[in-house]
Amino acid sequence: MNVVIVANAPSLRLDPYREMIAGADLVIAADGGANALVEAGFRPAIVIGDLDSLGATRLALLAADGVEVRRFPREKDETDLELALLHAVAIGATHIDILGALGGRWDHTFANVAMLAMPELQGRQVRLIDERQRLFLVRDQALLEGQRGDTLSLLPLTPTVCGITTRGLFYALDDATLHFERARGVSNILIDPPGFISLREGLLLVVQHDDCGAFQFAAGIEPC
Amino acid sequence: MNVVIVANAPSLRLDPYREMIAGADLVIAADGGANALVEAGFRPAIVIGDLDSLGATRLALLAADGVEVRRFPREKDETDLELALLHAVAIGATHIDILGALGGRWDHTFANVAMLAMPELQGRQVRLIDERQRLFLVRDQALLEGQRGDTLSLLPLTPTVCGITTRGLFYALDDATLHFERARGVSNILIDPPGFISLREGLLLVVQHDDCGAFQFAAGIEPC
Repeated sequence: MNVVIVANAPSLRLDPYREMIAGADLVIAADGGANALVEAGFRPAIVIGDLDSLGATRLALLAADGVEVRRFPREKDETDLELALLHAVAIGATHIDILGALGGRWDHTFANVAMLAMPELQGRQVRLIDERQRLFLVRDQALLEGQRGDTLSLLPLTPTVCGITTRGLFYALDDATLHFERARGVSNILIDPPGFISLREGLLLVVQHDDCGAFQFAAGIEPC
Repeated sequence: MNVVIVANAPSLRLDPYREMIAGADLVIAADGGANALVEAGFRPAIVIGDLDSLGATRLALLAADGVEVRRFPREKDETDLELALLHAVAIGATHIDILGALGGRWDHTFANVAMLAMPELQGRQVRLIDERQRLFLVRDQALLEGQRGDTLSLLPLTPTVCGITTRGLFYALDDATLHFERARGVSNILIDPPGFISLREGLLLVVQHDDCGAFQFAAGIEPC
């Protein structure tokens, strides 16, 4: 089951994601994410959160339109996005794409990325997506899809990540260790898609984006 | 010794930091950070990095002006900011403020924040600063300076952070544990500055910014 969650990043525009949203089995709005959905002509199946970012009129209209509204108290332990993720897990989501979770306050963005490490998400494909990049977590192994020339940064979310081996990347890793505080994995390049990555221990964040400029430095690779 | 490092965030404007830069004992430019410095009328003492973000003319002018230029090969293990930090440590910096390290590509920002965990920085006050927020790491204890009403988010940079105790915060913690993937520490509020925080184990990132809106939810506290 493919779920799209729309969170509440400021100035979120959903035009680039029309196909993704229309193709989802279920669309969940985390609180104010419903604003961007309604303004783009979509209707979430569920709105979840403390709902402090939604006007009363809009909320009433959504409810009248059959949207399921799940309101939590504001002083809860979970953020709206965490509640949305836990709900997606509870209904059996296998693929979760999250929009609107990057680009707001830096502490919010960081907390949203850290949520990829929730144990409940293990075994599911979960991605944070914005117009510039796609972020996902590797717990054991992953295919690295994308275009020849995509920039791929490998960022440990644990103090160390051990036994990293890659295929299809310009800077090949073979049973390598990366450390959280050292930026060794930044700006690798996908040269033979799909690439592949596996690791033995730790959690590794992959940040992937288009960046033809990377070719300037990858000798022998034709520019895209 | 107070050092200011200027990194290479896109569209960096240094006007808000004139006093900080002028008051530093030493200003280091990490590669293209020198552009923002020169454009604001400052002159770094040292430019360090692979220098791929500096034009040849500007570099020649800087060198002619007596700026120390330390050029490293592009395919190095360290990023330009990491080289600048290690240099600051080598010359005995006790306070390091880093400008221009937030707000560019998300993987760069994340890697820059993770660098706060470098063991070489232990025992020094190191802050990442932009116009919206100040980020610093707590390894054992820290004073939380700032204004009544500042938002303070507490974000673990290790899988767990144990034994967290706070003073002066709206949501008080007493020997609490925070987990990396749970956003429990987001949007606390400094109500009695200076606050204080201590912890027993782990690395805790503090993200601090002005946000009077927080008072809407902190009952009994007068709005700022």
